[in-house]
Amino acid sequence: MSIQGLRASELAEMFSADFLGEDILITGVASFHSAQSNQIVFLANQKLLSALGESKAKVVVVKNTEGLPSDRSYLIFPDPALLFARIANYFHPLPASLKKVHASAVIAENVAIPADVEIGPNVVIEAGVILSKGVQIKAGTFIGANSEIGANTILMPRVVVYSDTKIGERCLIHSGAVIGSDGFGNAWAIDHWERIPQIGRVVIGDSVEIGANTTIDRGALDDTVIESGVRLDNLIQIAHNVKIGKNTAIAACTGIAGSAEIGAHCLIGGGVLIAGHLKVADKVTILAGSGVPSGITESGIYASGVPVVPHGTWLKNMVHFRKLDELAKKVKSLEKTVVNQQLNQGEKRDTN
Amino acid sequence: MSIQGLRASELAEMFSADFLGEDILITGVASFHSAQSNQIVFLANQKLLSALGESKAKVVVVKNTEGLPSDRSYLIFPDPALLFARIANYFHPLPASLKKVHASAVIAENVAIPADVEIGPNVVIEAGVILSKGVQIKAGTFIGANSEIGANTILMPRVVVYSDTKIGERCLIHSGAVIGSDGFGNAWAIDHWERIPQIGRVVIGDSVEIGANTTIDRGALDDTVIESGVRLDNLIQIAHNVKIGKNTAIAACTGIAGSAEIGAHCLIGGGVLIAGHLKVADKVTILAGSGVPSGITESGIYASGVPVVPHGTWLKNMVHFRKLDELAKKVKSLEKTVVNQQLNQGEKRDTN
Amino acid sequence: MSIQGLRASELAEMFSADFLGEDILITGVASFHSAQSNQIVFLANQKLLSALGESKAKVVVVKNTEGLPSDRSYLIFPDPALLFARIANYFHPLPASLKKVHASAVIAENVAIPADVEIGPNVVIEAGVILSKGVQIKAGTFIGANSEIGANTILMPRVVVYSDTKIGERCLIHSGAVIGSDGFGNAWAIDHWERIPQIGRVVIGDSVEIGANTTIDRGALDDTVIESGVRLDNLIQIAHNVKIGKNTAIAACTGIAGSAEIGAHCLIGGGVLIAGHLKVADKVTILAGSGVPSGITESGIYASGVPVVPHGTWLKNMVHFRKLDELAKKVKSLEKTVVNQQLNQGEKRDTN
Repeated sequence: MSIQGLRASELAEMFSADFLGEDILITGVASFHSAQSNQIVFLANQKLLSALGESKAKVVVVKNTEGLPSDRSYLIFPDPALLFARIANYFHPLPASLKKVHASAVIAENVAIPADVEIGPNVVIEAGVILSKGVQIKAGTFIGANSEIGANTILMPRVVVYSDTKIGERCLIHSGAVIGSDGFGNAWAIDHWERIPQIGRVVIGDSVEIGANTTIDRGALDDTVIESGVRLDNLIQIAHNVKIGKNTAIAACTGIAGSAEIGAHCLIGGGVLIAGHLKVADKVTILAGSGVPSGITESGIYASGVPVVPHGTWLKNMVHFRKLDELAKKVKSLEKTVVNQQLNQGEKRDTN
Repeated sequence: MSIQGLRASELAEMFSADFLGEDILITGVASFHSAQSNQIVFLANQKLLSALGESKAKVVVVKNTEGLPSDRSYLIFPDPALLFARIANYFHPLPASLKKVHASAVIAENVAIPADVEIGPNVVIEAGVILSKGVQIKAGTFIGANSEIGANTILMPRVVVYSDTKIGERCLIHSGAVIGSDGFGNAWAIDHWERIPQIGRVVIGDSVEIGANTTIDRGALDDTVIESGVRLDNLIQIAHNVKIGKNTAIAACTGIAGSAEIGAHCLIGGGVLIAGHLKVADKVTILAGSGVPSGITESGIYASGVPVVPHGTWLKNMVHFRKLDELAKKVKSLEKTVVNQQLNQGEKRDTN
Repeated sequence: MSIQGLRASELAEMFSADFLGEDILITGVASFHSAQSNQIVFLANQKLLSALGESKAKVVVVKNTEGLPSDRSYLIFPDPALLFARIANYFHPLPASLKKVHASAVIAENVAIPADVEIGPNVVIEAGVILSKGVQIKAGTFIGANSEIGANTILMPRVVVYSDTKIGERCLIHSGAVIGSDGFGNAWAIDHWERIPQIGRVVIGDSVEIGANTTIDRGALDDTVIESGVRLDNLIQIAHNVKIGKNTAIAACTGIAGSAEIGAHCLIGGGVLIAGHLKVADKVTILAGSGVPSGITESGIYASGVPVVPHGTWLKNMVHFRKLDELAKKVKSLEKTVVNQQLNQGEKRDTN
């Protein structure tokens, strides 16, 4: 990429930050460790002050300059990580559309291709698909019949979008993601499973990002819904008829079972399992490795992940964990006995 | 799809249900919420009676009509969900073969293609592959050398089938599934891992469904076996030499380690981890998020998933959980002390 | 494959094993169960002696011949599983390069293709990619701009390698793996997420194996690093800026969060969750299903997976588990009471 370098003061002005110090030409972003003198870094945390000391970076994004060395220049902004992200986006924007349809793409006849759309090699687009302006469909991606891709959305290589899926604007979907596959619907018939057709869709809002190899099943009768601004990491499973509210972010390896409704502005850690047919309120944080078997009605932080201990300790703990109920009963019985003893002692004291 | 509408009484006759009420033309299936008056719905649960009240649907599949409003028509069947699935399948059958080989498919010369087979764009089929009648291989799917695909099986877009895999009839395999990849076989040699060649196959029975991005490894020496009627959801890992018995259904994000033998008719929840070299009996239900480190010899329901609590509670609980053995020892010691006190008191009483 | 058969004594010589018994022609490897008389088997465990008894195999790889039947021949080697792996590799080597570029591959003009490289059907290789000698890129794999693939590395069908990725020599990467996708980097901006560009790379050493549908994200600013000899199973998530040390082996369904540094020679079980921004020491074993929320500084075996119990027991246990802190407090209070009683009794005894 040949993005133009900018003076530190120009970056400050562009993003409404204050500027202090020598006005150096900035050509990119970097970490403390790897920065060259013309790359900008950020300090999110005073603990990293020593790392700054060892860095070649001359310009730093900070919250304030209290206690900071005077041999650096500073962009001052209330949220340094956010300003740094914006500067990084200036130097490393999402790829621009090549505005070109590769000759090897297999596109159904009735599909209209706006002039600024990019369609890569070996892409397959079935009949009735609607592509909005600025869409980029990278190599090998498949889009099933009658799906809609909103303006400026990017599908990375080898994404699969099943038929009738609706994806909003400015989404970014990573390789291997499968969107609109059948929900896991099976009806037992005496001696075998019968398929329950999955005729709902997946409907995805705007500015949604979906990680590599994540799967989102279509609804059984109604739709699976991912609202605008949602961020899904890699290897996540979203089952049929799940609804995920606006701006909720979910880390990798999490699974959400059918018809669960996750609120807006939730933060869900990695490897979380959420059962089906329940509601999680808005602004709920669920820490990594937790299990959510029933609904959560109040905003707050929740957890159930179990941390490792040395194996020997674990073996001993597990003996009791497997019969925790017995342990609790023992304690209850002890309490009774001890209370009786106190009563006895009291009586004896009285009768003494 | 332009499936023909049918009168409610015709549907009842087709599927051996009783019929009661006005004989309306039915054009499809729907949920209570989304139904138009000519779409059929089902009532699996008396709790949903109020939802029925608000639905535009005029025809309902039910178990019996006790307490149900008289302004609807009813298809009466012992298992309403099953009948509804069958009616849904009538209106939304699996896709029919296009009976066409796309020009972009790369197919080895010696592969015979029955006339009613569909092979989509960019499919790759290697030498020695056997395709039975009615097979559908959707866009971008890869089938390795000498694999066999049984009659009427459908491979959705971008499935990968490694060489020598055997897949039965009427299977449905979703996008991103990888079948026949190498098992995780490594032998340690003083200072590095050496590869243990994986020369077994994956053998899949009839009527098996496999979810998106699920992986099934080939056997090390003998085969990995998925018996007929098995249902696998998305993002499941089946390691080398696993055997899964007939009609077992497994929810998403579950991992089964090498050489585990899972019985028939099991129901395994999402995010379950099953260790290797063990047997799980037939008709075992394992709830979501459980760990199965050793064999299960008796049919029944098993669980070990840990439910979330508010983070503050969790932090306090974890302090004790990490030293549960100590807690149990304290209780044991208390028991002794209290028993001794009782003996002492008894003695004292005796000596008083 | 038409690998030449060898006499048992020739195999022994080839791999520096001792040989004892009748010198039979060996044509392949097998399990006890499936072996024909000219296939070699191995005995890793005296418990399997009865299985050997029922096997048709005439030649066995063993550690020593103590107590073994005299009607078989033996290759004697300190680590029978390792020798067997080597013999299996002789009969079933990794595929050799076809030294051919398929006509359907889409390769950027400036990419040099060494004469012994294989590029399969529908492969896409972008500009600036460097392919070393002996590389095999199987059908449908995508390699993004400026990536490097080291000598004799094999990418199986439908792998995705994002731009700027560096993969070493003799690696084996299975289908569906996605390498170099964006890390999960989001900055919150008052009412929406903003993307944090992920401009680091994935750098993979030599002799690394990566399983099907595993995902490895590129670094945010610096690189994600997988050192030489690492073995990753299927469906593993490696987040941005993770570092995995030499020869560490990780089983399926494990997730490692951002910036975690895993040591060398670790063994990590399936379904393990490792939090971000921590260090795991060298030679740490973590059992399946464990959660690692903070660093591990000492080599050893660690666990936190919870084993299943019958559902009824589980329900009873969970009641107490959710309020383990209360149980612990009861025990503490009981201890106090009992100690006071002892003091009282003591006093009374004194005052009696």
